Amino acid sequence: MKTAARERRPFAEIVPELVAAARGDKKASLVIQNVRLVNVVSGEILPGMSIAVSNERIVYVGRDVSHTVGETTQIIDAGGKYAAPGLLDGHCHIESTQMTATEFARAVLPLGTTGGFFDAHEISNVLGLDGLRFMLEEARSTPLAAYMQVASCVPSTHPGLETTGAMIGPEEVAEALSWGDDMIGLGEVMNFPDVVYGDDKMIGEIQATLRAGKIADGHFTWKADDWRLPVYAASGINGDHECVTAEDVIERIRLGMYAKMRQGSAWHDVAATIKSHTEGGIDTRRMILVTDDRSSESLMNEGHMNYVVRHAIAQGVKPVTAFQMATINTAERFGLSRDIGAIVPGAYADIILLDGNLADVNVVMTIAAGQVVAENGRMTADWERYPIPESALKTVKMERKLHAGDFAISAPIADGKAEVRAIEVVENHVETIERHLWVNVKNNTVLLDPADGLCKMAVFERHGKDGGHALGILAGIGFTKPAAIAMTVAHDSHNLTVIGNDDELMARAGNLVADMQGGVVMLTEDSMSEFPLAVGGIMSNQPFETVARQSEGISQALIAAGCPLNNAFMTLSLLALVVIPEIRLSDKGLVRISSEGIDIVPLFITQAAEK
Amino acid sequence: MKTAARERRPFAEIVPELVAAARGDKKASLVIQNVRLVNVVSGEILPGMSIAVSNERIVYVGRDVSHTVGETTQIIDAGGKYAAPGLLDGHCHIESTQMTATEFARAVLPLGTTGGFFDAHEISNVLGLDGLRFMLEEARSTPLAAYMQVASCVPSTHPGLETTGAMIGPEEVAEALSWGDDMIGLGEVMNFPDVVYGDDKMIGEIQATLRAGKIADGHFTWKADDWRLPVYAASGINGDHECVTAEDVIERIRLGMYAKMRQGSAWHDVAATIKSHTEGGIDTRRMILVTDDRSSESLMNEGHMNYVVRHAIAQGVKPVTAFQMATINTAERFGLSRDIGAIVPGAYADIILLDGNLADVNVVMTIAAGQVVAENGRMTADWERYPIPESALKTVKMERKLHAGDFAISAPIADGKAEVRAIEVVENHVETIERHLWVNVKNNTVLLDPADGLCKMAVFERHGKDGGHALGILAGIGFTKPAAIAMTVAHDSHNLTVIGNDDELMARAGNLVADMQGGVVMLTEDSMSEFPLAVGGIMSNQPFETVARQSEGISQALIAAGCPLNNAFMTLSLLALVVIPEIRLSDKGLVRISSEGIDIVPLFITQAAEK
Repeated sequence: MKTAARERRPFAEIVPELVAAARGDKKASLVIQNVRLVNVVSGEILPGMSIAVSNERIVYVGRDVSHTVGETTQIIDAGGKYAAPGLLDGHCHIESTQMTATEFARAVLPLGTTGGFFDAHEISNVLGLDGLRFMLEEARSTPLAAYMQVASCVPSTHPGLETTGAMIGPEEVAEALSWGDDMIGLGEVMNFPDVVYGDDKMIGEIQATLRAGKIADGHFTWKADDWRLPVYAASGINGDHECVTAEDVIERIRLGMYAKMRQGSAWHDVAATIKSHTEGGIDTRRMILVTDDRSSESLMNEGHMNYVVRHAIAQGVKPVTAFQMATINTAERFGLSRDIGAIVPGAYADIILLDGNLADVNVVMTIAAGQVVAENGRMTADWERYPIPESALKTVKMERKLHAGDFAISAPIADGKAEVRAIEVVENHVETIERHLWVNVKNNTVLLDPADGLCKMAVFERHGKDGGHALGILAGIGFTKPAAIAMTVAHDSHNLTVIGNDDELMARAGNLVADMQGGVVMLTEDSMSEFPLAVGGIMSNQPFETVARQSEGISQALIAAGCPLNNAFMTLSLLALVVIPEIRLSDKGLVRISSEGIDIVPLFITQAAEK
Repeated sequence: MKTAARERRPFAEIVPELVAAARGDKKASLVIQNVRLVNVVSGEILPGMSIAVSNERIVYVGRDVSHTVGETTQIIDAGGKYAAPGLLDGHCHIESTQMTATEFARAVLPLGTTGGFFDAHEISNVLGLDGLRFMLEEARSTPLAAYMQVASCVPSTHPGLETTGAMIGPEEVAEALSWGDDMIGLGEVMNFPDVVYGDDKMIGEIQATLRAGKIADGHFTWKADDWRLPVYAASGINGDHECVTAEDVIERIRLGMYAKMRQGSAWHDVAATIKSHTEGGIDTRRMILVTDDRSSESLMNEGHMNYVVRHAIAQGVKPVTAFQMATINTAERFGLSRDIGAIVPGAYADIILLDGNLADVNVVMTIAAGQVVAENGRMTADWERYPIPESALKTVKMERKLHAGDFAISAPIADGKAEVRAIEVVENHVETIERHLWVNVKNNTVLLDPADGLCKMAVFERHGKDGGHALGILAGIGFTKPAAIAMTVAHDSHNLTVIGNDDELMARAGNLVADMQGGVVMLTEDSMSEFPLAVGGIMSNQPFETVARQSEGISQALIAAGCPLNNAFMTLSLLALVVIPEIRLSDKGLVRISSEGIDIVPLFITQAAEK
């Protein structure tokens, strides 16, 4: 049955209804009896509790809610199951699941996620504020308590380093933040060097955010002991998920920031970062669990925030403390603890029931805005789909077909060996390593030896701007046969990126992706896997289950071609993200981030030839 | 030297300056080197830290701040002393000190209080929004980070139960909250029965507050296990200082409220309430230490928040946790943790240095908004005084002189004994007890026997309204000789209140207070003590030291007359506050608060005579 997701009305407008319902003069729409309440405010587990709900909000929590029950009240007897606040993802890019907000909601609600803080900077790099607006409106149509951030870094650095489909600056930030209370703040400010060194655009975006009374999130990847972390904190940015060590967490919290600990598909940071608490004993109130980027496959195979909370508990965190890190801490970070993150009178009725041991985080029912939306891992509610705008379906603007010659790397010497900067991939970590290698050159062209296990990487501008491209060399991909993967998912500029060890296959894969208006194509000499992503070239217009299957197909194809990397597709899609250490490739060339800043560096280190 | 208190500019406007100063490109105005940092965010004590300040804000915190030091930088070598955030009072009525905001600031800054949340509901009961505005403007002229709340309960209940000088409703609340970001929210909603039962005025005030995006504070004095506490919480009120037991704290926090633990002059609640943490193990993030009402004498003899924090530590709270309860917890409760409550980059430079053991809370230097304002217990800064408006100096509007006959209590019988409801005072606690006593009646008039130790209490309307009055009987005052005390400090209506055991002395004392446009006069047959309170009849226009001396004079006179109560003057001044259990006297009569509500009750229980 398709029904509209229940409206989330502002607290102020419904105070009379809330008080009357709490008193029992207006009867509850839903009552949940006999729960073990995971009280994340007091830090307790309270047995024998009941919860009364009026429309979208909780109105009463206590041992006896019988006065709120009327003839039409839906009653759920929880039989002593745990009831916890719906889980919140404190930093997430929906687009990284390759799903629209609607399908994302369908995927995560059964897993117990009822809200999140979404930085739609992927679609914003393709379509600018129009893309953000579409994501916002679509998210509003779902049962999720979805809060959106306006992307701060479109492009992630500046046009000299990469080409995007749009630009966002202080004026656009101010405009987007005026769209509603659910436009919660400024998305991760990845161009941290320009914040530290006082660039007008970055400072202006932060000022526009603070003037609007909203939150600015960060992304700082220099070391925890770099003297400039306090400078970054002085800018007003007070949350950051780029924590990969316990020290990263500790130093941020000491400086008054919220430290977000990330368990994405391609970055597994919680086991290390949580030691700030389990070994360092730091106050946990500013620790938040997030996913940042999780693939549809990861959602299907592991889960979403339920998986992250379970994983944190497995590191030795007390269950109620781990739940705090995915509920009240997150809500407090965004100034929303009246509305979300706790089962208390007045809050939205975003509630999950859990069976078995709390540490198992076994979600068996999800209630969002007072409606049961999922049971036993499956959606039970459905709603009208938000229509995808036509403009979002035509975003891959290539002026010509690719051919094998586009992938030839010209060397500064005629023949011999040349030393190059290769990008070495690190499994399960966000960082890459700049590896200096000698490659063979013949007729002024680099020849990669199949025995070296090296690949080429090419990034083609695809937003209808200058049509340029750049080439690089990758180590650690592991193809054992001729293979190529092409994709328009290439954070954050999402230009057409092709990785492979065979120029012909690379050209074919790139052309196939362009022809289908975006997506992923994996080719070998005898196989092809497709993952069409029609929405902005980065999201599918298909249901979650289809997306996960197609994503899995790409993963299997990568494995079959010899690539051993965990979550290889997502790892590869991040190789163009120039604000992550150590070295990446954009359409403008090789980009290196060092403690001095972010700069283009030449592919070739040496111009000296040796026979 | 008189200088203006340093302006506290909004964060958003000065981001470029903050970042430049953190980087060291703009040199610091102040650097504090070598502190043991009380880091209330991480919950740690960090030795060897230094702090750099640019104008009113902290820009850098770290082990090495040398890059921020320039030729004009003031450098303080703390020599390893503790540096903590300036203390915040999470709920305070400045008027209860009988001082203006200026003198309050002079009194508490040397004690380490650098900010607070002030509910000026005393002056608002006398002068309405004009009084609040004057208090706000005066507070802004001080070095304090002063945040004001608009009084929700003027009158505390309704005009049928007491007469005030002004009325405040939803429109006035909305207006006051538009005056600036430092108008932080709605003051304690003491008329909790009308919230629970959905009165339009009270609900309207809460809605006006939430619509303005601000905070609503509470005051609920029914028992912690009363089924209506969750109803009160559902209204959006999410902070309450009327906690007198550990259970009061626990139940509020479980419902998502901030529980404020109070150590006022006349109510000593911390030892009991803190057991919610020390014995109950409840998460402390929503526990806040407050004073509510402290006299000038208490400030001088015991201290302010420094005393409360020390007292909490003495109950077994870890020092850094107790500091959190008076700094970051308070700031978070009001959504201000970017500005106050922690020593982190970007926050206001409100810093205290402490010598000796941290548990001693021995404040030796206070820095407010980046300026050293006090050292070794004395103010070192001074500033231009805010002029007190003329209208605030003429507020005692009595139409006639009082005479002894005004204090005669007419009985419903001619002669014999009648049973009355006496108000029994409880030392060091906010509650009174309804005590049923038999009193002698002669010629239809109550005759109190000096041997009974009973007193009369009279409350005369003094705001130029109906000029009415009411009479009651008090137990527990303890006068051992003929004595009377009259005062225009009588929470919250601040009508002219006279307590004594001699009708002539009572009339004289009342007339003296009226003649001096408000204050306190204590009379015996051979002594008189005066405490003039020209500002609204509730605050002195004299310096702190004078106020404390005059207040002490009243205390000494009460002791000399046999009254054994601790902080007797403040205790007596609260006997007209009809929203505190169990029974009080207003100008309209005896007011009793029970689990059914707040109502006028007759003084006489029985009309039966017995000879």
